[in-house]
Amino acid sequence: MFRRAKQLLIGSPLETAALPEQRLGKLGALPILASDNLSSAAYATEEMLLALAAGAAAGLLLPPFYAIPLALAIGLLTLIVAISYGQTLHAYPTGGGAYTVAKENLGVWPALIAGSALLIDYVLTVAVSVAAGIAAITSAFPELYENRVGLAVLAVVLILLANLRGVRENAAVFAPPVYFFVFSVYLLIGGALYSYFTEGAAAPTPPTTAPPLTWNLALVFLVLRAFASGCTAITGIEAVANGVRIFRPPSSRNAAITLYLMATFLGTMFVGITVVCYLYGIQPIPDGSETMLSQLGRRVFGTGPVYYAIQAATMAILVLAANTSFADFPRLASVMAKDRFLPRQLATIGDRLVFSNGIVLLAAAACALLALYDAQTHNLLPLYLVGVFTAITLSQAGMVVHWRRAEERGKGWRAAVNAVGAVVTGLVLLVVASVKFTHGAFIIVAAIPLLALACRRVRQHYFTEKRELSLADYEKPKELRHTAVVPVGRMNKIVLSAIEYARSISKDVIAVQVNVEDEDPDQMLELWHAWAPDIPLIILESPYRSIQGPLLRFIDEVEGWRDNDVVTVVIPESVPKVWWHQLLHNQTSLFLKGALLFKPNIIVTSVPHHMQK
Amino acid sequence: MFRRAKQLLIGSPLETAALPEQRLGKLGALPILASDNLSSAAYATEEMLLALAAGAAAGLLLPPFYAIPLALAIGLLTLIVAISYGQTLHAYPTGGGAYTVAKENLGVWPALIAGSALLIDYVLTVAVSVAAGIAAITSAFPELYENRVGLAVLAVVLILLANLRGVRENAAVFAPPVYFFVFSVYLLIGGALYSYFTEGAAAPTPPTTAPPLTWNLALVFLVLRAFASGCTAITGIEAVANGVRIFRPPSSRNAAITLYLMATFLGTMFVGITVVCYLYGIQPIPDGSETMLSQLGRRVFGTGPVYYAIQAATMAILVLAANTSFADFPRLASVMAKDRFLPRQLATIGDRLVFSNGIVLLAAAACALLALYDAQTHNLLPLYLVGVFTAITLSQAGMVVHWRRAEERGKGWRAAVNAVGAVVTGLVLLVVASVKFTHGAFIIVAAIPLLALACRRVRQHYFTEKRELSLADYEKPKELRHTAVVPVGRMNKIVLSAIEYARSISKDVIAVQVNVEDEDPDQMLELWHAWAPDIPLIILESPYRSIQGPLLRFIDEVEGWRDNDVVTVVIPESVPKVWWHQLLHNQTSLFLKGALLFKPNIIVTSVPHHMQK
Repeated sequence: MFRRAKQLLIGSPLETAALPEQRLGKLGALPILASDNLSSAAYATEEMLLALAAGAAAGLLLPPFYAIPLALAIGLLTLIVAISYGQTLHAYPTGGGAYTVAKENLGVWPALIAGSALLIDYVLTVAVSVAAGIAAITSAFPELYENRVGLAVLAVVLILLANLRGVRENAAVFAPPVYFFVFSVYLLIGGALYSYFTEGAAAPTPPTTAPPLTWNLALVFLVLRAFASGCTAITGIEAVANGVRIFRPPSSRNAAITLYLMATFLGTMFVGITVVCYLYGIQPIPDGSETMLSQLGRRVFGTGPVYYAIQAATMAILVLAANTSFADFPRLASVMAKDRFLPRQLATIGDRLVFSNGIVLLAAAACALLALYDAQTHNLLPLYLVGVFTAITLSQAGMVVHWRRAEERGKGWRAAVNAVGAVVTGLVLLVVASVKFTHGAFIIVAAIPLLALACRRVRQHYFTEKRELSLADYEKPKELRHTAVVPVGRMNKIVLSAIEYARSISKDVIAVQVNVEDEDPDQMLELWHAWAPDIPLIILESPYRSIQGPLLRFIDEVEGWRDNDVVTVVIPESVPKVWWHQLLHNQTSLFLKGALLFKPNIIVTSVPHHMQK
Repeated sequence: MFRRAKQLLIGSPLETAALPEQRLGKLGALPILASDNLSSAAYATEEMLLALAAGAAAGLLLPPFYAIPLALAIGLLTLIVAISYGQTLHAYPTGGGAYTVAKENLGVWPALIAGSALLIDYVLTVAVSVAAGIAAITSAFPELYENRVGLAVLAVVLILLANLRGVRENAAVFAPPVYFFVFSVYLLIGGALYSYFTEGAAAPTPPTTAPPLTWNLALVFLVLRAFASGCTAITGIEAVANGVRIFRPPSSRNAAITLYLMATFLGTMFVGITVVCYLYGIQPIPDGSETMLSQLGRRVFGTGPVYYAIQAATMAILVLAANTSFADFPRLASVMAKDRFLPRQLATIGDRLVFSNGIVLLAAAACALLALYDAQTHNLLPLYLVGVFTAITLSQAGMVVHWRRAEERGKGWRAAVNAVGAVVTGLVLLVVASVKFTHGAFIIVAAIPLLALACRRVRQHYFTEKRELSLADYEKPKELRHTAVVPVGRMNKIVLSAIEYARSISKDVIAVQVNVEDEDPDQMLELWHAWAPDIPLIILESPYRSIQGPLLRFIDEVEGWRDNDVVTVVIPESVPKVWWHQLLHNQTSLFLKGALLFKPNIIVTSVPHHMQK
């Protein structure tokens, strides 16, 4: 029945031979690799302004105009990171994720830090994207706002099922929503600018400048915090470096062009949204019940078909962004599991040729986060950036080492480019970790090294185990001597078939019965000998009515009788036909098996009797 | 560790020989048997008036004075039931619970109905008493009102632990709170009457009569509902009949006197409280945040030491009332389990000489009810009475049959007394079930027959099983032939020790390996033969990467090779030293065991390798 349900939900198993390979051009690959990055345009401006608004609430007024230079700075950062990553594409044409680059150039610990940061980052990408996607929907249909956690979990479950079926990263599926989203954002910006400059008197006036600024530490901190919040725009930029192998040759060059294209799209969308929001005086709503993009859409196009189309495009690209993590997380987890840093189950390919265990783990973690953080993008974002920038920084630092070791022309200036990238992103990491520390970033600052440490211990275990089980010092044991002990209750068919079985595996069979109900031992022996005259029956008294205690002590004793002796405990067990019948039986055999599992030289065998009714 | 914690909480195991026997006089037995019944004085008046108040809210005004004749009617009913039960004491000097009386006189189905009604009733007694006890506390300390569910569950857990330790029904523990409660209620009534008649002008005036009544059906229904609510006073009256054996001889006579004493206490307390509440115009508070008894106490004695003492006494007797069910439920469940109507675990005496399973079951059910019904006495009471009156009615009806069969002097009038009791309580049952039907009684009306049906099916299963396992048609089988199949993975010490074991139990050993990672079979065979040259290795291909599927098919095939053949599947298994290491391994052996459990002629043996680190 379980198999039936599974088949219905995720489809029939696929053969290993069916693993396809698909190569794409620049415009085909862009939507697949860029959805995570581009989708951040949907919430980055809002996050930045929320940080400023929080400052205003604390009496720190920064004129709204300051959002524009901040956005430009973030645009510049995007450019630097893109150029820095451009180098990785050439060095790692089969895919240069932060974990790989750090492992090859910086060593185990940086690799584990990068890997842990990325794993956590992927979970957060799913949570943040789904939360933001649901926010696009609840902005359009406010009556759904109260149900956002349920909707978000539902969305994760649907993405999970699609991925368990094995969604290939299919350009035909990805291209329309991604390009449609880019188009609608540009349409929105363009439409807003057009209205602003043509409406004349009806046009809104941007807020006038506030009283002159007095710069102090608190204000600097506020600006840094707003900057850090805006940096969410950069998330997902590393995807192209991971995915070089999906490009048609010359793949590194194609990947680089795609990367710069993506950075340009993102930068212009982010800056553009920030500018028009400033012009229209649109502010974020603190409880997140309507997004700024939705407010802008309603303002420019009215609550009509264009507005709904923009909301739908936003939702769609955010779902695709979450989907990207469903491809990346299991892939990275399987690579780390093959290196023995994670449980080996994460490297197992499931029925549908995907790493099912990783996919389920990711979905479960994302749902937990969504429930915990109330499916609010704004609550989740402070956790997000530390992981992203840790991975980017380590990846760029790794590249610096890579170029120093390489024997290539121009390795000097290549190293310099990556060094600039590493330093800049490292600074951003420091800013992000410190200004968001109390807002939740501390959780991630603690979680990344803990996870790395856990990975290290996992590998240690696998190595110890391998050494312990190795056959290098194996000596063939002497022949085993067997004693079969059969714990029996009232005489019946189950008992007799267990006795028959015990007789067939050993010459020394002992039956043992615990006298819990204070019966006459002579009578018990008499009954026993009528049915099994050749098997000795030991009767154990049990003043405290426990069955397990006396049995365990007896089995221990038998084990001590002889050297090189194995005691096989043969347990008669009835297997009911109907599940609830199990509840009507003592669970003695279950408890006994559990207790015997941890004793050496004792082997447990159940002889099942299958009930007919 | 689990054993340690258990020992700390409930104490060391006790020997079977330690079962004590204690006989008591009238005044010693009364507190033990009467706490359930007497404690209902704490809430019966309030319930009756709440029913009337609900009518007032619907425009059905009954003058408050009518509460007094209603209370008198319920007092009369108490008397009738007490006299009727008085007969049972003589007929069943070893204890005549409704289940026993119905089984001996009316047959299986009435007995099961009575038994089910009582089991449900005991659960409700715990829930209602604890809820009412907590209400006495939260009336005194209103700041605790919001935490009442938590407090109620905590109270149940404490009573549970005390009972698992094996609280004997100890007169020394029971007597002070019960007599103190009776004393404080009389003190309250006396004090209230004294103030009322001496305070003169300062005394409250009872509400004046409302406009003349127009009797109609709705009003009759309202009166009946108030009557039904007030009948909660009678609950617990059957305890004396259950407990005749704890009296000193002449036990029936002593028990009868105790029963009449108890009925007198209850009747006077109930009527007295109703009268003084009427005089002082005290009304129930609909949300249950303060009990009427608490209001009366504050009014008469002020919020001082006397008031707090009354509240404490109320809480104490209600806890004792709940405790009574903890003695009765497991005892009845064990009797029904011995008759094979309930799972036999309920008849097992635990470490501390009590029916631990029944005790835990009762506590779990009561906690579930308290959580579900918000720990509000008023929500739980409509469920309560159907069970109580079903049991009482069946018990009295059984007594009528008993006397008709008996050969005793005066059996005619004895049968008549019980017949009156049966008819009156039967009528009350009808009233209670119908007027409270929509308030929740329908749940119990459905639950009682369902539980009875389940009991019947449990017995059926035990009988079928006994027949199936009986040795009447047993034929000794021919000698078994064995094939041992050892599923192996990568070659290591665990695999080799499983092979050694298999070799020791069978001459036909086959190793089988599933090739999930597309390795070269020749190489696999070569490695194998280097270590186990005499054991054939079968390699199974697995295009879908499943390990379990090919293995199960292969084992099935081997099972079909020979007649009278048993296949023993010997599973090499590593037992980790640290619990979390288990998570790092595939759970293949677990799944395999689960899948093989339901196949006939297949026996599973784990050969554990205990990891050193």
